[in-house]
Amino acid sequence: IRETRLTGAAIGRGNYRHFMEKELHEHPVVIGDVLSRMIDPSSRSVALWDLPFDLATLPRATISACGSAFYAGLVGRVWLETIARLPTDADVASEFRYRAPPLPSEGLGLLVSQSGETADTLAALRYMQDEGQHVLSVVNVPESSMARESDAVLETLAGPEIGVASTKAFTAQLTVLACFALAAGRARGTLDAAREAVLTQALMEVPGQAAEILSEETTAAIARVAERIAEARDVLYLGRGSCFPVALEGALKLKEISYIHAEGYAAGEMKHGPIALIDKHVPVVAIAPSGPLFEKTASNLQEAAARGGQVVVFSDAAGAEKLCGIAAETVVLPTCDPFVAPILHTIAVQMLAYKVALLKGTDVDQPRNLAKSVTVE
Amino acid sequence: IRETRLTGAAIGRGNYRHFMEKELHEHPVVIGDVLSRMIDPSSRSVALWDLPFDLATLPRATISACGSAFYAGLVGRVWLETIARLPTDADVASEFRYRAPPLPSEGLGLLVSQSGETADTLAALRYMQDEGQHVLSVVNVPESSMARESDAVLETLAGPEIGVASTKAFTAQLTVLACFALAAGRARGTLDAAREAVLTQALMEVPGQAAEILSEETTAAIARVAERIAEARDVLYLGRGSCFPVALEGALKLKEISYIHAEGYAAGEMKHGPIALIDKHVPVVAIAPSGPLFEKTASNLQEAAARGGQVVVFSDAAGAEKLCGIAAETVVLPTCDPFVAPILHTIAVQMLAYKVALLKGTDVDQPRNLAKSVTVE
Repeated sequence: IRETRLTGAAIGRGNYRHFMEKELHEHPVVIGDVLSRMIDPSSRSVALWDLPFDLATLPRATISACGSAFYAGLVGRVWLETIARLPTDADVASEFRYRAPPLPSEGLGLLVSQSGETADTLAALRYMQDEGQHVLSVVNVPESSMARESDAVLETLAGPEIGVASTKAFTAQLTVLACFALAAGRARGTLDAAREAVLTQALMEVPGQAAEILSEETTAAIARVAERIAEARDVLYLGRGSCFPVALEGALKLKEISYIHAEGYAAGEMKHGPIALIDKHVPVVAIAPSGPLFEKTASNLQEAAARGGQVVVFSDAAGAEKLCGIAAETVVLPTCDPFVAPILHTIAVQMLAYKVALLKGTDVDQPRNLAKSVTVE
Repeated sequence: IRETRLTGAAIGRGNYRHFMEKELHEHPVVIGDVLSRMIDPSSRSVALWDLPFDLATLPRATISACGSAFYAGLVGRVWLETIARLPTDADVASEFRYRAPPLPSEGLGLLVSQSGETADTLAALRYMQDEGQHVLSVVNVPESSMARESDAVLETLAGPEIGVASTKAFTAQLTVLACFALAAGRARGTLDAAREAVLTQALMEVPGQAAEILSEETTAAIARVAERIAEARDVLYLGRGSCFPVALEGALKLKEISYIHAEGYAAGEMKHGPIALIDKHVPVVAIAPSGPLFEKTASNLQEAAARGGQVVVFSDAAGAEKLCGIAAETVVLPTCDPFVAPILHTIAVQMLAYKVALLKGTDVDQPRNLAKSVTVE
């Protein structure tokens, strides 16, 4: 018998209609828990426990995961490269393990999995170990195979997730990866104390901002958008940089629980094919927070609107203002540092998928054909 | 006035109904042309002209491109890693240029573009140059900006491509990248002469095998599949390894010219979400040649079929035989070495998109919203 640290109270559905709704509402607490374990609020710095390898001298990182966890890894890649200047690759585990790429000596292997039992990710972990990588896992189940076999573990401790479509476990993964990127940046001398303070401050504001997104006002705005999406034949989700994986996550969640075919695309790739799909039956959902890539995304959205696409914009007040001429619908999210925008936008697109699924009347917590944890290839 | 090496005769539509059909039928000649320039048939070895850098000592390669050309780059990555053990990253140019990742000293930057003018790819090229990479371009227009700004150029010389959806330019890119991977493998000591002879022999058989795919018999089989796909609401394309990018290419081509929403997926990722979409209105197109990954893909297809999915299989005779119990339709392609399977399967999925577009009555050569060469971001 293995005891788990979780209490029975964490497993009830409470007053929520679905586990997914309950778990969406746990975002602020879960993110706050991660931050309280990883950030020292007085110094506004990341307090990562000792790792059995030196972040300062890592030559590269290689990220591997499946499904949503892979998208968390893609955001992590952007953070590790931009904040810590650590060259980072990312590939889905089922491809990575058979591609079997040469890996650099003493590199970092970084695996992400809610269950810690995902078959392909576990195989990727073992390949990385055979190739002499330092193996670090981001998992939600501390007793899992991946946790046991890794050199070090960053626990998400998001509590049990009952809804098959991952919600809070995903934002917990993002939050852990964000803190890890800050720690790596400090160790590698690419992040000074002042900038670290700014970015940890931005992270510490996320739980409050997440609660704003879950407020009646914002969820009502998302529910209005859901009425349009529920009628769509197909949907394109667009984003750039750290928000491109959020577009992938939004599309995956919509597929999983509403059975509408949604596809996430790098906004800059839209012109290279998918724009042919766009007409009034195929809305475009844009993840477009203010920041250095905003204008580029805005110009892609203009093209989509010019071709009859209904553009649904997720942005902050400033971004929403700039896009009001072309947006059919807008959801205004809290203004934040671009660093944390992918975490906040994830909550909004997950909520959108939930609201669409309600309108579609699907089995939200147990979507057809899906298993919570994929322990076969 | 800049003269081009192309003659007027290359530009007519001849007896074909569309430029795309004509260009599909040029696959054997174009691939043969590339091989005749890059392979010495007597020694069955690649005869690459001198490059201004040493393939043997490259620490890594970084591939960047847009749209179809990016998918060619993804196949190139698999070849470079497996044949030459050259660690290789690949990212779409619009993401790569703003992600601005740290690149290794004296690495190889590899860009792929039909026109050689693609705005994001050109920007990626310049970034790579600023970061001290040896820059090699695979382009179809020798007078293009990318050709002029590169340290070296591998020309595809596929002739002018009039159809907006790329066909022969794509397989020419694949063929050039295949030869380049062989040259890199030889230079790096990971490919011995005997193995090189086997793989060049496999390449030299491709033009004849391509002609088989374009024969009346096989195109008629593809046309039968097209009737099913034309009625589909949505389509999933699945592949693994070097055939995963072929799944992406098949899906992109279908989007572009038939306006059916198709999405390419790594077969191992299907269980992590997209399987929820599968029902009898969403067929699954599998790129499943015999080879080391066949059994894994077959098991994914079994799951899709068990959930009511209509599975359309592209494989060789042996693979088709093994999958006959679950396939709703099968297209049998020539038996080949797994090395060249992505080239042959590309021709088949492009032909499928063409046949579906004919049934849909779309403007095949000028699909809505698309430009041939994307010279803006």
